[in-house]
Amino acid sequence: MPATPAWPPRSAPRLFVAEELAADRTIAIEGNQAHYLSRVMRVGEGDTIILCDDITGEWAAQIESVGKRRIEAAAVERLREKEAVPDFWLCPALVKKDRFDLILEKATELGVARIRPVVTRRCVVDKLNAERARTVTVEAAEQCARTALPIVDAPDKLDTLLRDWPQDRALLFADETGGEPASGAFTRLKGPSALLIGPEGGFDEAERAAIRALPQAVPIGLGPRILRAETAAIAATALWMAVAGDWADERAEIPTPVR
Amino acid sequence: MPATPAWPPRSAPRLFVAEELAADRTIAIEGNQAHYLSRVMRVGEGDTIILCDDITGEWAAQIESVGKRRIEAAAVERLREKEAVPDFWLCPALVKKDRFDLILEKATELGVARIRPVVTRRCVVDKLNAERARTVTVEAAEQCARTALPIVDAPDKLDTLLRDWPQDRALLFADETGGEPASGAFTRLKGPSALLIGPEGGFDEAERAAIRALPQAVPIGLGPRILRAETAAIAATALWMAVAGDWADERAEIPTPVR
Repeated sequence: MPATPAWPPRSAPRLFVAEELAADRTIAIEGNQAHYLSRVMRVGEGDTIILCDDITGEWAAQIESVGKRRIEAAAVERLREKEAVPDFWLCPALVKKDRFDLILEKATELGVARIRPVVTRRCVVDKLNAERARTVTVEAAEQCARTALPIVDAPDKLDTLLRDWPQDRALLFADETGGEPASGAFTRLKGPSALLIGPEGGFDEAERAAIRALPQAVPIGLGPRILRAETAAIAATALWMAVAGDWADERAEIPTPVR
Repeated sequence: MPATPAWPPRSAPRLFVAEELAADRTIAIEGNQAHYLSRVMRVGEGDTIILCDDITGEWAAQIESVGKRRIEAAAVERLREKEAVPDFWLCPALVKKDRFDLILEKATELGVARIRPVVTRRCVVDKLNAERARTVTVEAAEQCARTALPIVDAPDKLDTLLRDWPQDRALLFADETGGEPASGAFTRLKGPSALLIGPEGGFDEAERAAIRALPQAVPIGLGPRILRAETAAIAATALWMAVAGDWADERAEIPTPVR
């Protein structure tokens, strides 16, 4: 048991801010974040909070003033640099809102670098609310002590995605008609990768043919049971992180859980 | 493209019933399931539905009568035997309802044989609504074309779980303070296994010591990022299925997606 209380306190609120942080720099917190700090967390002058900027990393900061709609806080000490995450993109077909939020939340927790939503023929949704997507990923990162946010792109049509596919990036394609077992394929193809997951109902035959025609595409199988689209996305991302990402890397330190 | 329409139709409703099915046996469907069939799916006499009993497997059945509160259907032809799933238990600490429902749903999809909920010191929930748990797992199985339901036990206290732990079953323990990378441990320990996942906030020191004292316990690590409890459960279950379960097995047939 530590003799002195932890600093910053484990219960300190944790927020992502848009501005770049630096020692002694005062930043303003407004809107929902100010409401959260003052009304929900009831912070006062002198309290410690934790701020991240997705640029320099994670800072302990001290509240300088609490106004009705605006809180000011000064960065005091950098706690961690912005983390590096594996070079892994997730390209999920759009699915209904709750299920897509789950994909965004879990992809953030699992350390996905970039999310490229895709629109396919069997998608029943063809738009993504960018602001909502940002809120979901920021909240997941705040909760899970991540210091880096995933990039979330605007949705692309499948043929656009395939046309511009980078030469050096494997496109791991969850093919419901079968493919190489994912674990073996992911282990074999370590390096820049992306995982393409279809919507409920899967890709149609023409789409499957177009994907398979791409030299970078590798059809993979996710076992004998049918997985919902969001389950396939989460399960295959976790597997990639474990066998081809950084789950087996040596690490100096495990960050302290926020809750 | 097939010249004749699929039978049973891909859109046929799929239900688990409590009674054992057999050729020509008529069974009664009541309550919410009758409501779902008549009001939501609008089935009528002569329509085909799909029934599972978690005993004999999956059957095509024909509606014989549609009453106000009771529908009768006769099993016509067995489509599949009840599937075998890997010998894998999930032992998740209880967490808040929505998050626990997610664990139950995804564990069902991923093919977990048995779910043994655990109550630990940092659990903010200590009860599980058994009926609700059954509803969640049945709906997940119906949706994902599973023919076998996971067993869901009543919650046990951690010390009870550890006291009676089977001699021949590895207890893979997601230890936030670190452990063998999960992928390697799961591959090494193929065979009857269980995965123990703590609540938000993790196990306390005494609990961790008690778990580690069990000869069957193997502390595992789930990578450098903090995962929420339900994410850890889903991610590690997917990983186990992929590297130690049946994702790499040869299989004769991929079942047809329900939706």
